[in-house]
Amino acid sequence: MGIFGKDIKRMEDLFLHTLQDIYYAENQIVKALPDMIEKSTNRDLTAGFKKHLEETETHVSRLEQVFKLLGRQPKGVECPAIDGIIKEASEIAGDVADKEVLDAALIGAAQAVEHYEIARYGTLAAWARQLERDDCATILHRTLEEEKATDEKLSRLAERKINVKAAS
Amino acid sequence: MGIFGKDIKRMEDLFLHTLQDIYYAENQIVKALPDMIEKSTNRDLTAGFKKHLEETETHVSRLEQVFKLLGRQPKGVECPAIDGIIKEASEIAGDVADKEVLDAALIGAAQAVEHYEIARYGTLAAWARQLERDDCATILHRTLEEEKATDEKLSRLAERKINVKAAS
Repeated sequence: MGIFGKDIKRMEDLFLHTLQDIYYAENQIVKALPDMIEKSTNRDLTAGFKKHLEETETHVSRLEQVFKLLGRQPKGVECPAIDGIIKEASEIAGDVADKEVLDAALIGAAQAVEHYEIARYGTLAAWARQLERDDCATILHRTLEEEKATDEKLSRLAERKINVKAAS
Repeated sequence: MGIFGKDIKRMEDLFLHTLQDIYYAENQIVKALPDMIEKSTNRDLTAGFKKHLEETETHVSRLEQVFKLLGRQPKGVECPAIDGIIKEASEIAGDVADKEVLDAALIGAAQAVEHYEIARYGTLAAWARQLERDDCATILHRTLEEEKATDEKLSRLAERKINVKAAS
């Protein structure tokens, strides 16, 4: 809760708060991905994580565009959800002895991150439309579609390669 | 990390660990939903949360069936991801002054929970199939489909009613 109590009074405040939440989250993901790149051994998975790091940097820039459209300075607020998801990813990675099983764990962890982002961008795009900020909604929707595409790519890679090797 | 180091050696160990993770998560959701039911004011949203509480109890039972099929006692392991997602839901709810804006915040928080579950059940069902445990995969897939359906229902309710009222 804000120091002075219930700070969110209007839908616009909630929208801005959630934008700050995902801005923090995206920046944490930028910090977490190099570790996942380093730990992964499958070439396709490493390449996928590297590509996703570039995409995530683009998503950060897009959020900065949305802040600009709203006449606000980009700012993050602490997001216990992404902190928890990243902590869990790091813990499970530390618990796995076998390299191929570790790849399966990493891809599962990455999909938990993707789904958090899909939830948040879906909500934010819907709120932006409702608030008649189609300029913001268009940008948020572009990122939403990329997160969904990444999640689907990870599912295919898991089912076709990573899980097969991990279970063999 | 386990007390004795890297406890997860095989894909079966990773599958069991992630099953314990979602078992803990579902039980935390059962505990968190009554608060969301109490805080929501829109009748359809309250009814939706009540129905989802019943469904979540069924999902707990289904996980117990999967443990039984594996010859294991149901057991949870701490899941920082769901703890973070629920903490964030509770914090944002405490920050919102207006009842209709609070409904919009609650539905957004519920969709973050749904997406965590969609990620985990998707991963678990794929791993079960890879491990040739179609008996477990079928049960996990049933819950996955219900979580997806709940998420879509929440999106429709948000766009048709909750967000409209929150922004007015």
